Amino acid sequence: MSKAVVVLSGGMDSVTLLHRIRKEGFEPLPITFFYGQKHATREIGFARYWADKFGVRHEVVDLGSLTQLLQSSALVDIGQEVPEGHYAAENMKATVVPNRNMIMLSIATAYAVDQKAEMVATGVHGGDHDIYPDCRPNFVNAAEKAAQLGNEGFANDPFYFYAPYIMQRKEDIALDGEALGVDWTVTWSCYKGGELHCGKCGTCVERKEAFELAKVKDPTDYEDRRVDIPGLGVSVKKGLLDG
Amino acid sequence: MSKAVVVLSGGMDSVTLLHRIRKEGFEPLPITFFYGQKHATREIGFARYWADKFGVRHEVVDLGSLTQLLQSSALVDIGQEVPEGHYAAENMKATVVPNRNMIMLSIATAYAVDQKAEMVATGVHGGDHDIYPDCRPNFVNAAEKAAQLGNEGFANDPFYFYAPYIMQRKEDIALDGEALGVDWTVTWSCYKGGELHCGKCGTCVERKEAFELAKVKDPTDYEDRRVDIPGLGVSVKKGLLDG
Repeated sequence: MSKAVVVLSGGMDSVTLLHRIRKEGFEPLPITFFYGQKHATREIGFARYWADKFGVRHEVVDLGSLTQLLQSSALVDIGQEVPEGHYAAENMKATVVPNRNMIMLSIATAYAVDQKAEMVATGVHGGDHDIYPDCRPNFVNAAEKAAQLGNEGFANDPFYFYAPYIMQRKEDIALDGEALGVDWTVTWSCYKGGELHCGKCGTCVERKEAFELAKVKDPTDYEDRRVDIPGLGVSVKKGLLDG
Repeated sequence: MSKAVVVLSGGMDSVTLLHRIRKEGFEPLPITFFYGQKHATREIGFARYWADKFGVRHEVVDLGSLTQLLQSSALVDIGQEVPEGHYAAENMKATVVPNRNMIMLSIATAYAVDQKAEMVATGVHGGDHDIYPDCRPNFVNAAEKAAQLGNEGFANDPFYFYAPYIMQRKEDIALDGEALGVDWTVTWSCYKGGELHCGKCGTCVERKEAFELAKVKDPTDYEDRRVDIPGLGVSVKKGLLDG
């Protein structure tokens, strides 16, 4: 069985990708990166869940030393607020981690070469293009070329990057995942990394929108959709009391 | 003053490069990688020496978590012997760390974007081409393209990779370094990482050869050029007793 290294964050895109890779007959080798992101614990925990569920080895690469190096991103700087609003809006640029995908794809490639895997799979999609230049097709193609040339004679032949959603929208991923039977409650999007999805940050807004546009039932328990029960000091998921 | 991120290993190539960058009027930002290499302590110590000497900030990135991921290289596997012989020979393939340069260039690029540096400088040279595909011009060009596209709108404009020795030989670097006044005794090549340069591993052989071909005096104290003093149980650098 051919091997496929899968960059797995634990979000809905990469979890759907993992299901797709397995369905296409590859042995998935998921790899997850810690780079100081605030939502690390939730992301990595959900990534591990899927690796265990599929019975495959899960590699977690600690790039924590990059947090000191890269001070400019709100995703890794604990003193900076994660911005709220629409995912594609200008203020979301604060969530850009410089060159994140090239770093992750480079390390995933090293692992793929070591394992003689046929591909490195990434869940980047069209909705990422506005804000994140390292999610655009021209970047992924150039990085694939570099990875092929830089490992000539050592990588599996063939060796390539697989980005099936790169020209699609996130709602297409929601549809694909639904068809593949993904359990969405075990996927994490929120950049804030609290107990529940906040419902307000860029990725939460994008997640809600994807389910709505795809007309796929969104089972996520969002903080901002909870309602307080008067006098009890607790909240419940909206709709839960409606029966 | 324009900034230049310099991938600095502490070897003769990158130390010469650091001198060149400074001479060309850039503010050098040296960055050194630990990836489990056996010769790390010597390399990193010498890199730090030069950063201190030039009065610039020195970043050391700990990629130690990659050693677990990448089991196939003799440079990072403590159970595997570093091969001896000529640098360009077939058995030197054991010293290939998969995709090492793409990983280092990717992280150096992230740092450069964060610092608005104009370039990432790397000391790769023609002598590396035979064994290491990630030191060849086609790879460096492709990686540069990926780095430019992946950071569009975030990187300094212009932003590029600078590899002045990529079409030259190591003896050209010895000549350039000599002209730039490099103190060779504070550069480290040996892959084995002992107290002295072993004189027998691929990079030691290459180092000796570079000085010889360039007709530059080699001040290195090689283990295999020492002579025992009979009866004393100690050795001295060959030639030292000749006066």
